[in-house]
Amino acid sequence: MQYIEIQSRKSEKVKNYCRLLSTAKARRKERLFCLEGLRLSVDAALSGFTIEQAFVTEAALSKSEKELEPLLSAARFVYKISEEVAEKMADTVTTQGVFCIAKMKEKADAVLEVGERYVALDNVQNPSNLGAIARTAEALGFKGLLLQDGCDIYNPKAQRASMGSLLRLEIRETGDLAALLAAAPKGILTFATVPDSTAEDIRTLDFSGGAVAVIGNEGNGVSAAVLDAVQKKATIPMRGRAESLNAAAAATITMWEMMK
Amino acid sequence: MQYIEIQSRKSEKVKNYCRLLSTAKARRKERLFCLEGLRLSVDAALSGFTIEQAFVTEAALSKSEKELEPLLSAARFVYKISEEVAEKMADTVTTQGVFCIAKMKEKADAVLEVGERYVALDNVQNPSNLGAIARTAEALGFKGLLLQDGCDIYNPKAQRASMGSLLRLEIRETGDLAALLAAAPKGILTFATVPDSTAEDIRTLDFSGGAVAVIGNEGNGVSAAVLDAVQKKATIPMRGRAESLNAAAAATITMWEMMK
Repeated sequence: MQYIEIQSRKSEKVKNYCRLLSTAKARRKERLFCLEGLRLSVDAALSGFTIEQAFVTEAALSKSEKELEPLLSAARFVYKISEEVAEKMADTVTTQGVFCIAKMKEKADAVLEVGERYVALDNVQNPSNLGAIARTAEALGFKGLLLQDGCDIYNPKAQRASMGSLLRLEIRETGDLAALLAAAPKGILTFATVPDSTAEDIRTLDFSGGAVAVIGNEGNGVSAAVLDAVQKKATIPMRGRAESLNAAAAATITMWEMMK
Repeated sequence: MQYIEIQSRKSEKVKNYCRLLSTAKARRKERLFCLEGLRLSVDAALSGFTIEQAFVTEAALSKSEKELEPLLSAARFVYKISEEVAEKMADTVTTQGVFCIAKMKEKADAVLEVGERYVALDNVQNPSNLGAIARTAEALGFKGLLLQDGCDIYNPKAQRASMGSLLRLEIRETGDLAALLAAAPKGILTFATVPDSTAEDIRTLDFSGGAVAVIGNEGNGVSAAVLDAVQKKATIPMRGRAESLNAAAAATITMWEMMK
Protein backbone atom coordinates (compact mmCIF):
# COMPACT_ATOMS: atom_id res chain seq x y z
CA MET A 1 0.00 0.00 0.00
CA GLN A 2 1.20 3.54 -0.74
CA TYR A 3 0.97 6.19 1.93
CA ILE A 4 1.60 9.93 1.81
CA GLU A 5 5.19 10.53 2.87
CA ILE A 6 6.32 13.15 5.39
CA GLN A 7 10.06 13.73 5.54
CA SER A 8 10.21 17.17 7.15
CA ARG A 9 9.87 17.98 10.82
CA LYS A 10 8.42 21.29 9.71
CA SER A 11 5.49 19.74 7.86
CA GLU A 12 2.16 21.35 8.78
CA LYS A 13 0.78 17.91 9.71
CA VAL A 14 3.60 17.39 12.17
CA LYS A 15 3.25 20.87 13.64
CA ASN A 16 -0.47 20.29 14.06
CA TYR A 17 0.12 16.99 15.88
CA CYS A 18 2.64 18.61 18.23
CA ARG A 19 0.28 21.47 18.97
CA LEU A 20 -2.55 19.08 19.88
CA LEU A 21 -0.13 17.02 21.94
CA SER A 22 1.09 19.91 24.02
CA THR A 23 -2.02 22.01 24.64
CA ALA A 24 -5.27 20.88 26.22
CA LYS A 25 -6.94 24.04 24.93
CA ALA A 26 -6.23 23.17 21.29
CA ARG A 27 -7.50 19.64 21.89
CA ARG A 28 -10.74 20.88 23.43
CA LYS A 29 -11.29 23.43 20.67
CA GLU A 30 -10.84 20.96 17.83
CA ARG A 31 -12.23 17.94 19.70
CA LEU A 32 -9.16 15.98 18.63
CA PHE A 33 -6.44 14.27 20.65
CA CYS A 34 -3.12 12.51 20.11
CA LEU A 35 -2.06 8.96 20.90
CA GLU A 36 1.41 7.46 20.65
CA GLY A 37 2.35 3.82 20.42
CA LEU A 38 1.09 0.79 18.56
CA ARG A 39 -1.12 -0.52 21.29
CA LEU A 40 -2.82 2.73 22.31
CA SER A 41 -3.41 3.74 18.68
CA VAL A 42 -4.85 0.35 17.75
CA ASP A 43 -6.95 0.32 20.93
CA ALA A 44 -8.47 3.64 19.91
CA ALA A 45 -9.42 2.28 16.49
CA LEU A 46 -10.86 -0.89 18.02
CA SER A 47 -12.77 1.09 20.66
CA GLY A 48 -14.71 2.96 18.00
CA PHE A 49 -12.83 6.25 17.96
CA THR A 50 -12.69 7.99 14.59
CA ILE A 51 -9.03 8.08 13.56
CA GLU A 52 -8.40 11.26 11.58
CA GLN A 53 -4.73 10.70 10.87
CA ALA A 54 -2.25 7.91 11.50
CA PHE A 55 1.54 8.39 11.31
CA VAL A 56 3.88 5.41 11.03
CA THR A 57 7.55 4.93 10.29
CA GLU A 58 8.83 2.49 7.68
CA ALA A 59 10.40 0.49 10.50
CA ALA A 60 7.10 0.22 12.38
CA LEU A 61 5.30 -0.80 9.20
CA SER A 62 7.70 -3.57 8.34
CA LYS A 63 7.91 -4.80 11.92
CA SER A 64 4.20 -4.71 12.79
CA GLU A 65 2.11 -4.33 9.64
CA LYS A 66 -0.37 -6.97 10.76
CA GLU A 67 -0.83 -5.53 14.26
CA LEU A 68 -1.20 -2.07 12.73
CA GLU A 69 -3.96 -3.15 10.37
CA PRO A 70 -6.95 -2.02 12.49
CA LEU A 71 -5.37 1.42 12.81
CA LEU A 72 -4.38 1.76 9.15
CA SER A 73 -7.75 0.67 7.83
CA ALA A 74 -9.65 2.95 10.25
CA ALA A 75 -7.56 6.06 9.61
CA ARG A 76 -8.90 8.65 7.15
CA PHE A 77 -5.30 9.53 6.24
CA VAL A 78 -2.14 7.52 6.77
CA TYR A 79 1.24 9.23 6.63
CA LYS A 80 4.55 7.44 6.37
CA ILE A 81 7.02 9.46 8.41
CA SER A 82 10.80 9.50 8.58
CA GLU A 83 12.62 8.54 11.78
CA GLU A 84 13.54 12.17 12.22
CA VAL A 85 9.87 13.20 12.11
CA ALA A 86 8.97 10.40 14.55
CA GLU A 87 11.54 11.74 17.00
CA LYS A 88 10.03 15.20 16.73
CA MET A 89 6.53 13.86 17.42
CA ALA A 90 7.57 11.49 20.20
CA ASP A 91 6.51 12.14 23.78
CA THR A 92 8.33 9.05 25.03
CA VAL A 93 12.03 8.29 25.35
CA THR A 94 12.08 5.44 22.88
CA THR A 95 9.29 5.84 20.36
CA GLN A 96 7.71 2.95 18.48
CA GLY A 97 7.13 5.24 15.50
CA VAL A 98 3.32 4.94 15.64
CA PHE A 99 1.07 7.96 16.27
CA CYS A 100 -2.48 9.01 15.56
CA ILE A 101 -4.92 11.86 15.89
CA ALA A 102 -8.35 10.68 17.03
CA LYS A 103 -11.67 12.43 17.42
CA MET A 104 -13.07 12.84 20.93
CA LYS A 105 -16.38 11.08 21.44
CA GLU A 106 -19.46 13.14 22.11
CA LYS A 107 -19.97 13.72 25.80
CA ALA A 108 -22.56 11.29 27.08
CA ASP A 109 -25.19 12.12 29.65
CA ALA A 110 -24.11 10.74 32.96
CA VAL A 111 -26.32 7.82 33.94
CA LEU A 112 -25.68 5.73 37.03
CA GLU A 113 -26.96 2.17 36.90
CA VAL A 114 -28.06 0.28 39.99
CA GLY A 115 -25.75 -2.62 40.81
CA GLU A 116 -22.77 -1.11 38.99
CA ARG A 117 -19.61 0.39 40.43
CA TYR A 118 -18.15 3.77 39.53
CA VAL A 119 -15.28 5.90 40.64
CA ALA A 120 -15.64 9.68 40.58
CA LEU A 121 -12.60 11.95 40.52
CA ASP A 122 -13.15 15.36 42.03
CA ASN A 123 -10.43 17.60 40.60
CA VAL A 124 -7.66 14.99 40.47
CA GLN A 125 -4.79 16.87 38.85
CA ASN A 126 -2.00 14.41 38.24
CA PRO A 127 -2.22 12.64 34.84
CA SER A 128 -0.41 9.59 36.20
CA ASN A 129 -3.00 9.29 38.96
CA LEU A 130 -5.88 9.59 36.46
CA GLY A 131 -4.31 6.97 34.19
CA ALA A 132 -3.47 4.56 37.01
CA ILE A 133 -6.95 4.85 38.53
CA ALA A 134 -8.57 4.17 35.15
CA ARG A 135 -6.38 1.12 34.61
CA THR A 136 -7.22 -0.30 38.04
CA ALA A 137 -10.92 0.49 37.58
CA GLU A 138 -11.02 -1.50 34.37
CA ALA A 139 -9.02 -4.39 35.85
CA LEU A 140 -11.46 -4.63 38.75
CA GLY A 141 -14.54 -4.55 36.54
CA PHE A 142 -15.83 -1.05 37.18
CA LYS A 143 -18.50 0.31 34.86
CA GLY A 144 -17.18 3.81 34.47
CA LEU A 145 -15.42 6.92 35.60
CA LEU A 146 -17.01 10.25 36.52
CA LEU A 147 -14.83 13.32 36.25
CA GLN A 148 -15.18 16.84 37.57
CA ASP A 149 -12.41 19.32 36.75
CA GLY A 150 -8.77 18.27 37.12
CA CYS A 151 -6.74 16.46 34.48
CA ASP A 152 -8.62 15.74 31.26
CA ILE A 153 -8.75 12.21 29.87
CA TYR A 154 -7.01 13.22 26.65
CA ASN A 155 -3.81 14.20 28.43
CA PRO A 156 -1.03 12.14 26.77
CA LYS A 157 0.50 11.04 30.08
CA ALA A 158 -2.87 9.97 31.44
CA GLN A 159 -3.57 7.98 28.27
CA ARG A 160 -0.22 6.20 28.48
CA ALA A 161 -0.57 5.40 32.19
CA SER A 162 -4.05 3.98 31.60
CA MET A 163 -2.78 1.49 29.00
CA GLY A 164 -5.92 2.04 26.95
CA SER A 165 -8.40 1.85 29.83
CA LEU A 166 -9.35 5.51 29.32
CA LEU A 167 -10.38 4.57 25.77
CA ARG A 168 -12.54 1.64 26.88
CA LEU A 169 -14.20 2.68 30.15
CA GLU A 170 -17.42 4.68 30.13
CA ILE A 171 -16.31 8.19 31.00
CA ARG A 172 -18.68 10.89 32.13
CA GLU A 173 -17.44 14.44 32.46
CA THR A 174 -19.59 16.68 34.59
CA GLY A 175 -19.44 20.24 35.77
CA ASP A 176 -21.70 19.42 38.70
CA LEU A 177 -20.68 16.19 40.36
CA ALA A 178 -22.61 17.09 43.51
CA ALA A 179 -25.91 17.27 41.61
CA LEU A 180 -25.18 14.03 39.80
CA LEU A 181 -24.47 12.24 43.06
CA ALA A 182 -27.51 13.72 44.78
CA ALA A 183 -29.66 12.39 41.92
CA ALA A 184 -28.22 8.86 42.02
CA PRO A 185 -30.90 6.16 41.72
CA LYS A 186 -32.12 4.58 44.93
CA GLY A 187 -29.96 1.66 46.02
CA ILE A 188 -26.67 3.09 44.83
CA LEU A 189 -24.33 4.06 47.64
CA THR A 190 -22.49 7.33 47.09
CA PHE A 191 -19.51 8.01 49.32
CA ALA A 192 -16.39 10.13 49.54
CA THR A 193 -13.04 8.88 50.77
CA VAL A 194 -11.59 11.16 53.44
CA PRO A 195 -8.41 10.97 55.55
CA ASP A 196 -10.42 11.28 58.77
CA SER A 197 -10.30 8.48 61.31
CA THR A 198 -13.78 9.37 62.60
CA ALA A 199 -15.37 8.55 59.23
CA GLU A 200 -16.73 5.06 58.58
CA ASP A 201 -14.23 2.27 57.98
CA ILE A 202 -14.31 1.52 54.24
CA ARG A 203 -14.52 -2.21 55.04
CA THR A 204 -17.88 -1.83 56.79
CA LEU A 205 -19.83 -0.31 53.89
CA ASP A 206 -22.36 -2.27 51.83
CA PHE A 207 -21.69 -1.94 48.10
CA SER A 208 -24.13 -4.63 47.00
CA GLY A 209 -26.60 -2.22 45.36
CA GLY A 210 -23.87 -0.53 43.37
CA ALA A 211 -21.75 2.37 44.48
CA VAL A 212 -19.93 5.54 43.48
CA ALA A 213 -16.67 6.28 45.29
CA VAL A 214 -15.42 9.87 45.16
CA ILE A 215 -11.66 10.43 45.24
CA GLY A 216 -10.60 14.00 45.92
CA ASN A 217 -7.90 16.38 44.78
CA GLU A 218 -4.33 15.40 45.71
CA GLY A 219 -3.81 18.37 48.01
CA ASN A 220 -7.26 19.45 49.13
CA GLY A 221 -9.33 16.29 49.06
CA VAL A 222 -12.99 16.15 48.12
CA SER A 223 -14.70 19.53 47.59
CA ALA A 224 -17.26 20.82 50.11
CA ALA A 225 -20.21 20.64 47.70
CA VAL A 226 -19.48 16.99 46.91
CA LEU A 227 -18.99 16.12 50.59
CA ASP A 228 -22.45 17.56 51.21
CA ALA A 229 -23.96 15.56 48.38
CA VAL A 230 -22.69 12.05 49.21
CA GLN A 231 -24.51 9.66 51.52
CA LYS A 232 -21.41 8.61 53.46
CA LYS A 233 -17.83 9.51 54.21
CA ALA A 234 -15.45 6.58 54.37
CA THR A 235 -11.86 6.25 55.49
CA ILE A 236 -9.07 3.75 55.03
CA PRO A 237 -7.68 2.79 58.43
CA MET A 238 -3.91 3.23 58.61
CA ARG A 239 -1.27 2.12 61.04
CA GLY A 240 1.90 3.85 60.07
CA ARG A 241 3.46 7.27 60.08
CA ALA A 242 2.96 8.51 56.52
CA GLU A 243 0.49 11.37 56.56
CA SER A 244 -1.80 9.71 54.10
CA LEU A 245 -1.93 7.42 51.14
CA ASN A 246 -1.51 9.10 47.79
CA ALA A 247 -4.60 9.56 45.63
CA ALA A 248 -3.89 6.54 43.42
CA ALA A 249 -3.23 4.23 46.38
CA ALA A 250 -6.36 5.40 48.22
CA ALA A 251 -8.39 4.87 45.06
CA THR A 252 -6.90 1.41 44.56
CA ILE A 253 -7.78 0.23 48.06
CA THR A 254 -11.24 1.78 47.80
CA MET A 255 -11.99 0.10 44.47
CA TRP A 256 -10.64 -3.21 45.71
CA GLU A 257 -12.98 -3.12 48.73
CA MET A 258 -15.90 -2.21 46.47
CA MET A 259 -15.51 -5.24 44.26
CA LYS A 260 -15.64 -7.76 47.10
CA MET B 1 23.29 33.51 61.27
CA GLN B 2 25.79 33.97 58.44
CA TYR B 3 26.02 31.38 55.69
CA ILE B 4 28.44 30.98 52.83
CA GLU B 5 26.92 32.61 49.76
CA ILE B 6 26.74 31.06 46.30
CA GLN B 7 25.71 33.41 43.52
CA SER B 8 27.04 31.57 40.49
CA ARG B 9 25.44 28.65 38.69
CA LYS B 10 28.94 27.57 37.80
CA SER B 11 30.07 27.17 41.39
CA GLU B 12 31.80 23.85 42.03
CA LYS B 13 29.34 23.12 44.83
CA VAL B 14 26.41 23.54 42.47
CA LYS B 15 28.04 21.44 39.76
CA ASN B 16 28.71 18.72 42.30
CA TYR B 17 25.09 18.72 43.46
CA CYS B 18 23.82 18.48 39.87
CA ARG B 19 26.20 15.64 39.11
CA LEU B 20 24.98 13.65 42.13
CA LEU B 21 21.39 14.46 41.21
CA SER B 22 21.68 13.18 37.68
CA THR B 23 23.84 10.07 37.96
CA ALA B 24 23.23 7.03 40.12
CA LYS B 25 26.83 5.96 39.53
CA ALA B 26 28.24 9.13 41.10
CA ARG B 27 25.88 8.71 44.05
CA ARG B 28 26.95 5.12 44.62
CA LYS B 29 30.64 5.95 44.33
CA GLU B 30 30.55 8.80 46.83
CA ARG B 31 27.78 7.33 49.01
CA LEU B 32 25.99 10.67 48.84
CA PHE B 33 22.56 11.62 47.51
CA CYS B 34 20.48 14.73 46.85
CA LEU B 35 17.17 15.83 48.27
CA GLU B 36 15.03 18.78 47.24
CA GLY B 37 12.30 20.50 49.19
CA LEU B 38 11.81 21.62 52.75
CA ARG B 39 10.00 18.57 53.97
CA LEU B 40 12.24 15.90 52.43
CA SER B 41 15.41 17.68 53.53
CA VAL B 42 14.16 18.16 57.08
CA ASP B 43 12.90 14.55 57.16
CA ALA B 44 16.39 13.36 56.27
CA ALA B 45 17.93 15.35 59.12
CA LEU B 46 15.29 14.11 61.57
CA SER B 47 15.69 10.51 60.38
CA GLY B 48 19.35 10.48 61.35
CA PHE B 49 20.99 11.00 57.98
CA THR B 50 24.24 12.93 58.04
CA ILE B 51 23.64 16.15 56.10
CA GLU B 52 26.84 17.13 54.33
CA GLN B 53 25.59 20.30 52.69
CA ALA B 54 22.37 22.29 52.79
CA PHE B 55 21.45 24.93 50.18
CA VAL B 56 18.73 27.49 50.85
CA THR B 57 17.54 30.67 49.18
CA GLU B 58 17.02 33.92 51.06
CA ALA B 59 13.30 33.60 50.32
CA ALA B 60 13.13 30.10 51.81
CA LEU B 61 15.05 31.26 54.89
CA SER B 62 12.80 34.21 55.59
CA LYS B 63 9.63 32.23 54.90
CA SER B 64 10.49 29.03 56.80
CA GLU B 65 13.47 29.63 59.09
CA LYS B 66 11.84 27.81 61.98
CA GLU B 67 10.81 24.74 59.93
CA LEU B 68 14.30 24.66 58.41
CA GLU B 69 16.04 24.63 61.79
CA PRO B 70 16.56 20.82 62.05
CA LEU B 71 18.18 20.85 58.61
CA LEU B 72 20.35 23.93 59.19
CA SER B 73 21.62 22.74 62.56
CA ALA B 74 22.37 19.24 61.25
CA ALA B 75 24.18 20.34 58.10
CA ARG B 76 27.98 20.41 58.14
CA PHE B 77 27.88 23.31 55.65
CA VAL B 78 25.00 25.65 54.83
CA TYR B 79 25.08 27.67 51.63
CA LYS B 80 22.81 30.59 50.88
CA ILE B 81 22.05 30.43 47.18
CA SER B 82 20.60 32.93 44.73
CA GLU B 83 17.28 32.27 42.99
CA GLU B 84 19.21 31.68 39.77
CA VAL B 85 21.29 28.97 41.42
CA ALA B 86 18.16 27.41 42.92
CA GLU B 87 16.63 27.18 39.45
CA LYS B 88 19.74 25.46 38.15
CA MET B 89 19.64 22.91 40.97
CA ALA B 90 15.89 22.35 40.83
CA ASP B 91 14.50 19.03 39.66
CA THR B 92 10.90 20.22 40.12
CA VAL B 93 8.85 22.76 38.19
CA THR B 94 8.40 25.17 41.08
CA THR B 95 11.24 24.84 43.52
CA GLN B 96 10.99 25.73 47.21
CA GLY B 97 14.64 26.77 47.19
CA VAL B 98 15.73 24.11 49.70
CA PHE B 99 18.23 21.37 48.82
CA CYS B 100 20.67 19.12 50.60
CA ILE B 101 23.31 16.49 50.06
CA ALA B 102 23.03 13.63 52.55
CA LYS B 103 25.19 10.63 53.29
CA MET B 104 23.78 7.19 52.52
CA LYS B 105 23.43 4.98 55.56
CA GLU B 106 25.56 1.88 55.85
CA LYS B 107 23.83 -1.11 54.32
CA ALA B 108 22.28 -3.16 57.07
CA ASP B 109 22.19 -6.93 57.11
CA ALA B 110 18.76 -8.05 56.09
CA VAL B 111 16.93 -9.53 59.07
CA LEU B 112 13.32 -10.64 58.87
CA GLU B 113 11.39 -10.56 62.14
CA VAL B 114 8.55 -12.94 62.90
CA GLY B 115 5.19 -11.16 63.08
CA GLU B 116 6.30 -8.26 60.91
CA ARG B 117 5.32 -7.39 57.36
CA TYR B 118 7.70 -6.62 54.53
CA VAL B 119 7.45 -5.90 50.85
CA ALA B 120 10.24 -7.05 48.55
CA LEU B 121 10.75 -5.47 45.14
CA ASP B 122 12.38 -7.72 42.58
CA ASN B 123 13.83 -5.43 39.93
CA VAL B 124 11.12 -2.77 40.02
CA GLN B 125 12.40 -0.14 37.59
CA ASN B 126 10.08 2.83 37.76
CA PRO B 127 11.06 5.39 40.42
CA SER B 128 7.43 6.49 40.82
CA ASN B 129 6.44 2.91 41.58
CA LEU B 130 9.23 2.52 44.13
CA GLY B 131 8.27 5.80 45.82
CA ALA B 132 4.54 5.08 45.83
CA ILE B 133 5.03 1.56 47.20
CA ALA B 134 7.27 2.89 50.00
CA ARG B 135 4.70 5.54 50.90
CA THR B 136 1.87 2.99 51.04
CA ALA B 137 4.04 0.53 53.01
CA GLU B 138 4.69 3.13 55.66
CA ALA B 139 1.05 4.24 55.80
CA LEU B 140 -0.05 0.64 56.34
CA GLY B 141 2.50 -0.03 59.07
CA PHE B 142 4.99 -2.23 57.25
CA LYS B 143 8.34 -2.84 58.91
CA GLY B 144 10.53 -2.55 55.86
CA LEU B 145 11.36 -2.86 52.24
CA LEU B 146 13.66 -5.42 50.61
CA LEU B 147 15.18 -4.48 47.28
CA GLN B 148 16.91 -6.49 44.61
CA ASP B 149 18.15 -4.65 41.51
CA GLY B 150 15.88 -2.08 39.82
CA CYS B 151 15.55 1.55 40.79
CA ASP B 152 17.73 2.59 43.72
CA ILE B 153 16.20 4.31 46.74
CA TYR B 154 18.28 7.45 46.23
CA ASN B 155 16.71 8.23 42.87
CA PRO B 156 15.32 11.79 43.19
CA LYS B 157 11.93 10.89 41.69
CA ALA B 158 11.55 7.91 43.97
CA GLN B 159 12.41 10.05 47.00
CA ARG B 160 9.85 12.67 46.04
CA ALA B 161 7.09 10.14 45.35
CA SER B 162 7.73 8.47 48.69
CA MET B 163 7.17 11.73 50.61
CA GLY B 164 9.97 10.80 53.00
CA SER B 165 8.93 7.17 53.55
CA LEU B 166 12.13 5.94 51.86
CA LEU B 167 14.06 7.85 54.53
CA ARG B 168 12.11 6.34 57.42
CA LEU B 169 11.38 2.72 56.47
CA GLU B 170 13.93 -0.01 57.13
CA ILE B 171 15.43 -0.69 53.72
CA ARG B 172 17.44 -3.77 52.93
CA GLU B 173 19.25 -4.02 49.63
CA THR B 174 20.24 -7.48 48.63
CA GLY B 175 21.92 -9.06 45.66
CA ASP B 176 20.34 -12.41 46.48
CA LEU B 177 16.69 -12.00 47.38
CA ALA B 178 16.04 -15.70 46.75
CA ALA B 179 18.54 -16.76 49.42
CA LEU B 180 17.17 -14.21 51.86
CA LEU B 181 13.62 -15.49 51.36
CA ALA B 182 14.67 -19.13 51.59
CA ALA B 183 16.31 -18.35 54.93
CA ALA B 184 13.28 -16.55 56.39
CA PRO B 185 12.57 -17.53 60.01
CA LYS B 186 9.89 -20.15 60.58
CA GLY B 187 6.42 -18.66 60.78
CA ILE B 188 6.97 -15.93 58.22
CA LEU B 189 5.04 -16.46 55.01
CA THR B 190 6.99 -15.62 51.86
CA PHE B 191 5.01 -15.23 48.67
CA ALA B 192 5.23 -13.74 45.21
CA THR B 193 2.39 -11.93 43.47
CA VAL B 194 1.79 -13.30 39.98
CA PRO B 195 -0.81 -12.47 37.30
CA ASP B 196 -1.88 -16.11 37.09
CA SER B 197 -5.44 -17.04 37.92
CA THR B 198 -4.41 -20.55 38.99
CA ALA B 199 -2.29 -19.18 41.86
CA GLU B 200 -3.82 -18.81 45.31
CA ASP B 201 -6.27 -15.97 45.87
CA ILE B 202 -4.43 -13.30 47.89
CA ARG B 203 -7.44 -13.09 50.22
CA THR B 204 -7.07 -16.70 51.38
CA LEU B 205 -3.50 -16.47 52.71
CA ASP B 206 -2.67 -16.33 56.41
CA PHE B 207 -0.35 -13.43 57.24
CA SER B 208 -0.64 -13.71 61.02
CA GLY B 209 2.94 -14.92 61.56
CA GLY B 210 4.37 -12.11 59.50
CA ALA B 211 4.93 -12.09 55.77
CA VAL B 212 7.09 -10.96 52.89
CA ALA B 213 5.30 -10.10 49.65
CA VAL B 214 7.42 -10.04 46.50
CA ILE B 215 6.42 -7.61 43.74
CA GLY B 216 8.09 -8.22 40.39
CA ASN B 217 9.47 -6.18 37.55
CA GLU B 218 6.93 -4.09 35.61
CA GLY B 219 7.37 -6.03 32.39
CA ASN B 220 8.67 -9.45 33.36
CA GLY B 221 7.24 -10.03 36.82
CA VAL B 222 9.07 -11.92 39.57
CA SER B 223 12.35 -13.60 38.56
CA ALA B 224 12.60 -17.38 38.31
CA ALA B 225 15.02 -17.75 41.22
CA VAL B 226 12.74 -15.81 43.52
CA LEU B 227 9.66 -17.75 42.37
CA ASP B 228 11.50 -20.92 43.32
CA ALA B 229 12.43 -19.56 46.72
CA VAL B 230 9.03 -18.36 47.97
CA GLN B 231 6.57 -20.58 49.81
CA LYS B 232 3.52 -19.49 47.83
CA LYS B 233 2.39 -17.74 44.69
CA ALA B 234 -0.60 -15.46 45.13
CA THR B 235 -2.80 -13.64 42.69
CA ILE B 236 -5.24 -10.77 42.81
CA PRO B 237 -8.52 -11.86 41.24
CA MET B 238 -9.68 -9.48 38.51
CA ARG B 239 -12.92 -9.01 36.67
CA GLY B 240 -12.23 -6.58 33.90
CA ARG B 241 -10.43 -6.38 30.60
CA ALA B 242 -7.16 -4.62 31.49
CA GLU B 243 -4.32 -7.09 31.10
CA SER B 244 -3.12 -6.60 34.61
CA LEU B 245 -2.85 -4.10 37.40
CA ASN B 246 0.27 -1.96 37.30
CA ALA B 247 3.04 -2.77 39.78
CA ALA B 248 2.07 -0.03 42.23
CA ALA B 249 -1.63 -1.00 42.23
CA ALA B 250 -0.83 -4.70 42.67
CA ALA B 251 1.51 -3.83 45.54
CA THR B 252 -1.12 -1.59 47.15
CA ILE B 253 -3.81 -4.29 47.10
CA THR B 254 -1.34 -6.90 48.33
CA MET B 255 -0.15 -4.76 51.24
CA TRP B 256 -3.71 -3.83 52.15
CA GLU B 257 -4.70 -7.52 52.35
CA MET B 258 -1.60 -8.24 54.44
CA MET B 259 -2.47 -5.72 57.13
CA LYS B 260 -5.93 -7.10 57.80
